[in-house]
Amino acid sequence: MATPPNRPAGLPAWNIPTAEARARFLAALKPDSHGLVAAIAQAHGTGEVLMLAWMNAEAVEETLATGRVTYYSRSRKGLWRKGETSGQVQHLIDLRLDCDGDALLAIVHQDGVACHTGRRSCFSWGLREDSVAPLEPVLADPATLYGKPG
Amino acid sequence: MATPPNRPAGLPAWNIPTAEARARFLAALKPDSHGLVAAIAQAHGTGEVLMLAWMNAEAVEETLATGRVTYYSRSRKGLWRKGETSGQVQHLIDLRLDCDGDALLAIVHQDGVACHTGRRSCFSWGLREDSVAPLEPVLADPATLYGKPG
Repeated sequence: MATPPNRPAGLPAWNIPTAEARARFLAALKPDSHGLVAAIAQAHGTGEVLMLAWMNAEAVEETLATGRVTYYSRSRKGLWRKGETSGQVQHLIDLRLDCDGDALLAIVHQDGVACHTGRRSCFSWGLREDSVAPLEPVLADPATLYGKPG
Repeated sequence: MATPPNRPAGLPAWNIPTAEARARFLAALKPDSHGLVAAIAQAHGTGEVLMLAWMNAEAVEETLATGRVTYYSRSRKGLWRKGETSGQVQHLIDLRLDCDGDALLAIVHQDGVACHTGRRSCFSWGLREDSVAPLEPVLADPATLYGKPG
């Protein structure tokens, strides 16, 4: 029942599950033919749906064992420790499994913003006045988040 | 700017977008190699994440044009008008697009329960005391929802 290091004060504890418990969770998953399950991140407290990404078994294991959310990047074909580059870490509050075992819901404390555009949530566009328009403001400069020249 | 029929009283209006607006929304999608985008349903008001399913272009078009959520069933290989069998309809409040165009967030009014197990949300399992356990109660009898012998 260790707790993760570098966890912001005031968050509910993430009691790291035992190796046996993590193995039970992994055994309940039904990954697709690529070995992946979909993973939704939802903000603790506000309930905002932040993003949708993918996890393989290694990412799920690392997420449970560290209390920080790790995805699998399909484009980079490797583990994607959310916030490793941008600092926008997701601290795990709970990891829920759906009825089919092929999708996860990570309840998280999001440091800063989830979206690479600098918006809080990736789901920030919708139809307004017959056009697809951004619905949410840019809160962080992507050039700063990713260290690219502005 | 028609509104859908059979919409429960008290819901925010769904002003059916014009055919041109729906075409613009569809043009912003980047479906996968199977022609699908992931679609998350979130409950209006409470913010509960209810389910994750898939939509093809036809399902997105029908959802926007009717104000009732239609998915694409990968197992049945056809449109899945949520609630058609079970009565557990999802009335559309907003349909949001993510930064990559490959995932949607449907904000919905859920009639009854979203999960085929009779739970409000499909994301109703998690690790408790080292085991994968149901976290939410069964609110509706699946045998009643789907007309199967109990």
